[in-house]
Amino acid sequence: MSTPFCRHVGQELFKAVSRPQRASRLWQALETPQISQISRPQKYSSRPFTFRTACRQPVSPIAPKPDPASKARVRSLPVLAASTGLLTLLFTVFQPVSHEPIEIPTNVSSSPSAEAPIDDGDGDGLPRYRLSEIKEHGAKSDRPWVIYGDKVYDITDWVGAHPGGEVILRAAGGSIEPYWDIFAIHKSQYVRDILEQYVVGKVHSDDLENGRPLQNAIEDPFVSDPKRDTRLRQITQKPCNAETPADELAESFLTPNETFYVRNHMWVPVVDETEADNHGITIELPDGEVKTYSVGELKARFKQHSVTAVLQCSGNRRNDMTRYAKKTNGLQWTVGAISCAKWEGVRLRDVLADAGLSLADPGEDARHVQFSGLEAYGASIPIESAIDPRGDVLLAFKMNDKPLPRDHGFPVRVVVPGHVAARAVKWVNKIVISDEESTTTWQRKDYKCFGPNETKQDWDKYKSIQVMPITSAITRTRLRPETRTAPPQQEPRTTASGRMVQIEGYAYSGGGREIQRVDISLDGGANWDQAKLLDDTEQEKGARTWCWKRWTYEGVLPEVKDDANGEAKTTFVVKATDDAYNTQPESHKSIYNLRGNLATAWHRVDFNCKNC
Amino acid sequence: MSTPFCRHVGQELFKAVSRPQRASRLWQALETPQISQISRPQKYSSRPFTFRTACRQPVSPIAPKPDPASKARVRSLPVLAASTGLLTLLFTVFQPVSHEPIEIPTNVSSSPSAEAPIDDGDGDGLPRYRLSEIKEHGAKSDRPWVIYGDKVYDITDWVGAHPGGEVILRAAGGSIEPYWDIFAIHKSQYVRDILEQYVVGKVHSDDLENGRPLQNAIEDPFVSDPKRDTRLRQITQKPCNAETPADELAESFLTPNETFYVRNHMWVPVVDETEADNHGITIELPDGEVKTYSVGELKARFKQHSVTAVLQCSGNRRNDMTRYAKKTNGLQWTVGAISCAKWEGVRLRDVLADAGLSLADPGEDARHVQFSGLEAYGASIPIESAIDPRGDVLLAFKMNDKPLPRDHGFPVRVVVPGHVAARAVKWVNKIVISDEESTTTWQRKDYKCFGPNETKQDWDKYKSIQVMPITSAITRTRLRPETRTAPPQQEPRTTASGRMVQIEGYAYSGGGREIQRVDISLDGGANWDQAKLLDDTEQEKGARTWCWKRWTYEGVLPEVKDDANGEAKTTFVVKATDDAYNTQPESHKSIYNLRGNLATAWHRVDFNCKNC
Repeated sequence: MSTPFCRHVGQELFKAVSRPQRASRLWQALETPQISQISRPQKYSSRPFTFRTACRQPVSPIAPKPDPASKARVRSLPVLAASTGLLTLLFTVFQPVSHEPIEIPTNVSSSPSAEAPIDDGDGDGLPRYRLSEIKEHGAKSDRPWVIYGDKVYDITDWVGAHPGGEVILRAAGGSIEPYWDIFAIHKSQYVRDILEQYVVGKVHSDDLENGRPLQNAIEDPFVSDPKRDTRLRQITQKPCNAETPADELAESFLTPNETFYVRNHMWVPVVDETEADNHGITIELPDGEVKTYSVGELKARFKQHSVTAVLQCSGNRRNDMTRYAKKTNGLQWTVGAISCAKWEGVRLRDVLADAGLSLADPGEDARHVQFSGLEAYGASIPIESAIDPRGDVLLAFKMNDKPLPRDHGFPVRVVVPGHVAARAVKWVNKIVISDEESTTTWQRKDYKCFGPNETKQDWDKYKSIQVMPITSAITRTRLRPETRTAPPQQEPRTTASGRMVQIEGYAYSGGGREIQRVDISLDGGANWDQAKLLDDTEQEKGARTWCWKRWTYEGVLPEVKDDANGEAKTTFVVKATDDAYNTQPESHKSIYNLRGNLATAWHRVDFNCKNC
Repeated sequence: MSTPFCRHVGQELFKAVSRPQRASRLWQALETPQISQISRPQKYSSRPFTFRTACRQPVSPIAPKPDPASKARVRSLPVLAASTGLLTLLFTVFQPVSHEPIEIPTNVSSSPSAEAPIDDGDGDGLPRYRLSEIKEHGAKSDRPWVIYGDKVYDITDWVGAHPGGEVILRAAGGSIEPYWDIFAIHKSQYVRDILEQYVVGKVHSDDLENGRPLQNAIEDPFVSDPKRDTRLRQITQKPCNAETPADELAESFLTPNETFYVRNHMWVPVVDETEADNHGITIELPDGEVKTYSVGELKARFKQHSVTAVLQCSGNRRNDMTRYAKKTNGLQWTVGAISCAKWEGVRLRDVLADAGLSLADPGEDARHVQFSGLEAYGASIPIESAIDPRGDVLLAFKMNDKPLPRDHGFPVRVVVPGHVAARAVKWVNKIVISDEESTTTWQRKDYKCFGPNETKQDWDKYKSIQVMPITSAITRTRLRPETRTAPPQQEPRTTASGRMVQIEGYAYSGGGREIQRVDISLDGGANWDQAKLLDDTEQEKGARTWCWKRWTYEGVLPEVKDDANGEAKTTFVVKATDDAYNTQPESHKSIYNLRGNLATAWHRVDFNCKNC
């Protein structure tokens, strides 16, 4: 491997790390994309992370520590085998854009902050550290450490290059493993090899149990999560994913904060209430200009707006698709991964304009607005959505007239009405105007729909879900209390056929399109009638119709013959139509996709006419 | 009926006629809405048409002519019986908004321009006129006449109050009956009663045959229509409705002008090429301010833009709905009531701004933009569509780099990309910014979709079709020439099963939503594959994707068993998905509506695998 080649790759890596978009592409090229949003660390300098080692140590699996100032500790470098391929890949992916030689820093220091007793029972030459010592190397220390297995790593020099950004510091002072359980992409030899470069010691044997750190010393990343309302239907606890109970969905136009569905990809970041107004959002324009606004400044300087809008997970009703088509991957939401609230905050477009973006002509480089949250989640929306004067995109501080609950983004979240909720980034702390989409897996992979037959997922083939298609659901069915008495000459009623049934539910379409008709069938779709749409328009706020339409229906149960099992079942069906006359597909099979996204087929609820 | 009451109604009528929106509502209240767009005539003064007679002649069916200056001719006034109910209705509909008394003109003159020989064989005291004399009272004469039956009417005083506006002059100098055949709403006693007020004579007996004017003297309203390309599939000749032949639809991205589908509601207005730049468009703002632009002025003063956009009739594929669901009313289009062209003209929003409309804040009164064409067709779009900076709504002069063909609106038409073509008014000569939709039947009735069960059509229940939903169609299927030879031990192939079939077609979604996936099934929807989308993006112009996506597919015909008739049929199916992941409904039954609008279900084409 020639020196010019190394220098070239180094240049590219250096550029990559010094420019988030490029770094993101790089990371993506490396096929380790779970956390691929590089933030520009303020405290940690960005450094290329494999170049130095790869070029200097082309052969030996055991190399001397490159930092002459540190103690003679040994680093294992199995990374090299991977690196060769990696560099080839980099060379293929990145064409040179500049031939200016750039000096690659080599004096990277990884020295631990304190002398440690050598407890080298294995003869590995590594010092041993007590968990209490390691804990001192937390997120706020000058030299953050993490534990993996029984080894201790000084990640100081890695933080700046970590594709997930400073979120890695969440693990500092303790074990990184609970986080790798969340960000499963890390569980690869490739990532372990990177980490291995930074080993500084081992956990002291007194703090090990069966060769691993004591369990009670490993912090649960979710330990600070808020308590949730018991009415929420929990699907996963860590991270919290919980849906609004079905029979409360259409109960009120605005979903109460306590029962608003929760979709967390990770833990809930902790922002102290007294510090909320100091929380900052960094805005980066395509020309590299950066401006930071505190929440307090946003509130004080920009006009506040109220918008009522539904948020809906792309996986809402996924369980239906599993049931009527076949197995889908992902959280098995029923009908409750949707809620409606009144949001209050400042318009993103106003803030972007203030930050220096031309709303009239954002320019070719300004095609997407990328958001990152405190917990490392990231996503983006097209620039047109962000600056649309009628788009109502907010940086929201309030939800239903109260400060945002922690689960919903305290102290500030993005709200993108009419779009999939996955773009409404919570705990937002960074906004980048870019020529490309956010490079996170949540933008580029998770939220897409392939054809019903497509098993090979070519991620670039389809667009990320943004504006949502139309859907509807039955949320409650009940028999109306019987008032008629069967004439005496008739046999007593054995089924509910002929009785009145009351049904209620919601219908919603994205893009600000209003629901204009909800069709109901009590016999599986053979005959139709129209539901009564509730008029909630007085509560609606915003330039377009961003809200759901609640509906009710009363109808007579059809006569149903007993089936082979002696059951008398019928199926209630709902389908809706919006003002662009979009309607729902009939079957989940026809829209099946492995991820179970956008399970918007007619909603069917089986109803047993006996034993009612 | 008291005098104050009459005065009040008079005031209301006067206001109504002097203000088009109000007059339109009035006309609608009278339930004669076929032609309900009142234009403000420049030549003919607007006058209330029933008040004078109704209040002055409350009882007698035969009243003396109110104009003392004219000859003592008798007018039958059966209008009165209707008028009493009418006035009650008016009183109910219009609450007084002003109590200022307004003088109602009474000296309306209806005298014929020339003395005529009395040929009073019937003793009716009416003069007789030769057809040649009547012809002199054409549209450009000071006193236009029309013939109805064998009677002659001087409509001079009616033109200003005619709800359809000056289009009535199209009939001047000849018989009005061919026009009533088009505008069938006129065929009522009520309308005949109005006309009867203006009788001035009868057709001379020498020009009558069986009591009616000689047929060759009755002008065909369509006599000046242009010749059409013989490749167009004519559905009706008068007016011309003709679709693009299926196998030419996906042949080119831009449909040639000659084979672009034609949807005319009436005749094609005649505008001389040398006069094209003098053609005027009147723009009326909510405050009543009126500004007129000539085509020449529009071209000279405003920046011209090119936009490629599909136009599609809401009835495209209606024949499918008839076939797969049940009978629908309306033109039985197959897949060819859709075409794509490059349009060139000025932006409507630029012109409206110039005319004085505030684009930033149009105001509460500016909710719709109503368009009228020379032939009396009218429709409207929401103000948001009209002024959307990314809406690309044009006043277009050119189509595929040539002047608009006469069939497509020469010299100027509206183009509203992403919306139903019924809003893209041709031969436009008037634009009114209003607080309400156009009151024409084409806006308020014809283009709506009711539920599959709804037989009673409550027209106010649903919104007019504007932005179009997603659709797709197969436009051509053919077997690929066979290259394989059956192995000698096999029987000769008796069906096409196993052979390659080539399919092509289009997919389109309204609202600027791009098609991102086209699914094809060769077995009726059991199995799916994806079509290849043709890349026509280089030809696309506009802020959003207003065009169709052409696609092709090659697949192997499935094995099909013979049916009871010895046929081996399979069904090809296409369905598309746009970038908001809207998709098509599966069956026409589920979206059935009596008018057969928006027949967007999966497109199915039966294919007989034998005898190929």
